[in-house]
Amino acid sequence: MPGVGTFPTPSPLPGLPEHVTICEVGPRDGLQNESGVVPTATKVEFVRRLEAAGLPVVEVTSMVRPDRVPQLADAEEVLTVLGDPPAGGRRPVLVANQRGLDRALALGVAEVAVFASATETFARRNLNRGLAESLEIFEPVVARAVDAGVRVRGYLSMCFGDPWEGRVPVAQVVDVGRRLLDLGCAELSLGDTIGVGTAGQVRALLSAFGAAGVDAGRLAVHFHDTYGQALANTLAALEAGVGVVDASAGGLGGCPYAKSATGNLATEDLVWLLDGLGIDTGVDLGALVATSAWLAAELGRPSASRVVRALSPPAP
Amino acid sequence: MPGVGTFPTPSPLPGLPEHVTICEVGPRDGLQNESGVVPTATKVEFVRRLEAAGLPVVEVTSMVRPDRVPQLADAEEVLTVLGDPPAGGRRPVLVANQRGLDRALALGVAEVAVFASATETFARRNLNRGLAESLEIFEPVVARAVDAGVRVRGYLSMCFGDPWEGRVPVAQVVDVGRRLLDLGCAELSLGDTIGVGTAGQVRALLSAFGAAGVDAGRLAVHFHDTYGQALANTLAALEAGVGVVDASAGGLGGCPYAKSATGNLATEDLVWLLDGLGIDTGVDLGALVATSAWLAAELGRPSASRVVRALSPPAP
Repeated sequence: MPGVGTFPTPSPLPGLPEHVTICEVGPRDGLQNESGVVPTATKVEFVRRLEAAGLPVVEVTSMVRPDRVPQLADAEEVLTVLGDPPAGGRRPVLVANQRGLDRALALGVAEVAVFASATETFARRNLNRGLAESLEIFEPVVARAVDAGVRVRGYLSMCFGDPWEGRVPVAQVVDVGRRLLDLGCAELSLGDTIGVGTAGQVRALLSAFGAAGVDAGRLAVHFHDTYGQALANTLAALEAGVGVVDASAGGLGGCPYAKSATGNLATEDLVWLLDGLGIDTGVDLGALVATSAWLAAELGRPSASRVVRALSPPAP
Repeated sequence: MPGVGTFPTPSPLPGLPEHVTICEVGPRDGLQNESGVVPTATKVEFVRRLEAAGLPVVEVTSMVRPDRVPQLADAEEVLTVLGDPPAGGRRPVLVANQRGLDRALALGVAEVAVFASATETFARRNLNRGLAESLEIFEPVVARAVDAGVRVRGYLSMCFGDPWEGRVPVAQVVDVGRRLLDLGCAELSLGDTIGVGTAGQVRALLSAFGAAGVDAGRLAVHFHDTYGQALANTLAALEAGVGVVDASAGGLGGCPYAKSATGNLATEDLVWLLDGLGIDTGVDLGALVATSAWLAAELGRPSASRVVRALSPPAP
């Protein structure tokens, strides 16, 4: 029987990028949704294994209130134990406000991520303030980070649908997204937080950003697989010129605003697609699958990644 | 909170078909992989519910040897109890050979499906004869069916990868596929039996069929989600002009030649995509989800469909 090296068979699609940068969000977006607290040593080993598997960008943790997100209360310790990132590697840290930025700057973090909502209701529910006010709060955070020479990644949530507002107008997403970029974000990651979007919406939103003068090179996509659409949406985004894709090893992470436990696009399933398209990512799929299989054993439940399940099935 | 009717938000992609015909294979391809035997009454109700949900084509069963596939030993009874299909509905029945065709003709079946392999090894392992010999055996089966006014659907397995041979040359798939069409098959369904294919391979194979003079209107696609690629592959097929997609309600079915239990593309996840693209299928997603939730309860395990899990989560 042919080994995994035989598959997937590289077969390019015209018009797609030669290289895609995967932004691995498992340690932050994934583990913060775990019901139990994962030991610091396990988090550190997870990040190190991901980097050893070739993932160039790993969002390692979040500087949020430990009483609100106890899963990430060890942010400083994780960063301190990890030490410097590997050569060429990046480790963005999510910050929610000035206080979070202070904590990140004190540790010499080179990249942070900020988190905004494309809808009024989600802004009020998740950030406890309205959309306009939340952007006002981010303004000095982004400005201070940029002044300190720190790269800023902007997340925009609920770009394709909102559990309270339903459909989200494209013009509204573009408006909020442009403001985040104008504040100084180097990159904007467009999130389908509840996973309802489909490929036509992806294309329409990316076209609208292009029409508003935003180059696709400044955009990333962040899909959740709640309705099984994450990889098809990714393909549509690649076809529209996006070259940065967020994913979570093993499909870790859930969405607290959807009933399903289904989480982020699994990094392994994404790498399978990109390997098949002959698109370079620098990731060693075998090492990545082994990492997710190891973490699944640590967490005591099977991986949500189809590729991990196929290549490293849990013991019966 | 907006209801399911709010999502997905219709947003067409240029160049896609206005209508897609879904060929529902759950009752046959799905249930034949169940470890236990499903009661005949459950199968009949499953088919009726699928048809009531608007699925236009339901592959109801298979005329195979009861000692080999005991799960479908009640094929005659299922068809007899079902009676006539609904107006405009089709119910293809899989037949493996002359004897199976005899059984189907005796029951007045209007459409049959035959099953060939694109690779020599799978032909020998699954059909117990070589590729050339298996096509010789199908020739009189297809000819007799066509003479009897019965429509014939051809399945071609292992079009994108074979567990023993690895990569499958495109020219070989086109050659075998054309021979099936030349025998008299009205439609050819290209199967990724082990789910390893990616979007570039899909496009390349469909282009090669086009270059060989086969109209995309005679082709269908049949993806397994073993590596999470089924829906992205479907999108690539739609972009290449394919308008018939096989799927299995609830993602029923496995592949006995892959270690993973992951089965067919889930019909609900496909309908979510097509609804989102504004492509007409005639399917009522809510009724379909209710059907798969009902069957999951009958089978005693959660549905593999992401959409079913999101909209109809199993009781905790």
